[in-house]
Amino acid sequence: MTTKIELDQKVKAKGWEIAEALRADFRKRGIYAVNLIGSPGAGKTSLLEALAPRLQGKAAVIEGDLQTDDDKRRIERCGLPAYEINTIGACHLDAKMVEKALSEFFVQDKQLLFIENVGNLVCPASCEIGEDIKIAVISVTEGDDKPAKYPVALRVSAAMVVSKIDLLPYVDCDVERMKRDALAANPEIKIFNICAKNGEGLDALLSWLDEMAAARV
Amino acid sequence: MTTKIELDQKVKAKGWEIAEALRADFRKRGIYAVNLIGSPGAGKTSLLEALAPRLQGKAAVIEGDLQTDDDKRRIERCGLPAYEINTIGACHLDAKMVEKALSEFFVQDKQLLFIENVGNLVCPASCEIGEDIKIAVISVTEGDDKPAKYPVALRVSAAMVVSKIDLLPYVDCDVERMKRDALAANPEIKIFNICAKNGEGLDALLSWLDEMAAARV
Repeated sequence: MTTKIELDQKVKAKGWEIAEALRADFRKRGIYAVNLIGSPGAGKTSLLEALAPRLQGKAAVIEGDLQTDDDKRRIERCGLPAYEINTIGACHLDAKMVEKALSEFFVQDKQLLFIENVGNLVCPASCEIGEDIKIAVISVTEGDDKPAKYPVALRVSAAMVVSKIDLLPYVDCDVERMKRDALAANPEIKIFNICAKNGEGLDALLSWLDEMAAARV
Repeated sequence: MTTKIELDQKVKAKGWEIAEALRADFRKRGIYAVNLIGSPGAGKTSLLEALAPRLQGKAAVIEGDLQTDDDKRRIERCGLPAYEINTIGACHLDAKMVEKALSEFFVQDKQLLFIENVGNLVCPASCEIGEDIKIAVISVTEGDDKPAKYPVALRVSAAMVVSKIDLLPYVDCDVERMKRDALAANPEIKIFNICAKNGEGLDALLSWLDEMAAARV
């Protein structure tokens, strides 16, 4: 009899295969793909909105949501092409969903492709969807214990964005503790303090992304 | 051949069986069990800390976390008995984990039992762990679009706690929209605006919980 674990492993292996094929295609076409993960309300869409003026003609966005296409419309209003994947309740995007999206949504060569995952700091961390890197977004309003409590999300990410830093005066959050715990989970992780509202930290994040994309080719 | 869906259904059915057995045992012993769900950093543990002075000798807490026993220790410091379930990466508690916890952690008869789930607004919504009710905690800092984007969490919950309302002056959040969307998902849902820091809304929440517990028996 086939066990549940064996079947799960088969499904996962198939997902990895699709993710690898997507990655190879992105590489061939000079597309650099970023899988944006984080809790509901961490500020993933706001980050993309804030980056949008600097990315006109250079980036495309795939939005993953359980419900509504609000985020896709928010991105389109900022002048970037966007596509909505509605997971119909599934807790994270998978490679098959992204593959299907890309059969309908054309991403130009040599662009940045942001794939905003479902709001969930747990499940998206364990799934490859063809991305070059993951970036984990954690807001200061979630509390400074989050990197210690969700280390897997940081272990698989190339960068942590500490978002909503304009709210630091109003919350009990020690950003140094967040950094320390993120680095304990992943000593290679880059950390960017960001305020989507006033633009703080955006240039540093984009410069680093440009370097990463250039270094990959 | 057994398909993945068939096996998943068998595992789920077994979970429901355990959840029903837990529920029956709670009922017999006059224990009222609340499954607290919400994103990482929504304020679930802070809510329990704030309730603790009003619940001395009347409540116990099971904490579900991916990592660390920080939350258990926070609850114990407030004078309530607490037990940690470390899910070792799993994205939500299941009935089997709670059953095992209760073989090691004694909850007195006629008490309130809070079971704080893993920080995740998606997966815990679809799992029964023996609770009488679920309460979904959503903070104003997550944004007013969250009830519309995560309706399942509200559909399965008896109440929504809108947390961190002291931060309303500093964030763009329309609490009326949250209420409207929560009621659209679940017309029966009770809504409590809470500030764990200054205690606003706690008495109303506890009165309602008392009524619910009394009505069940």
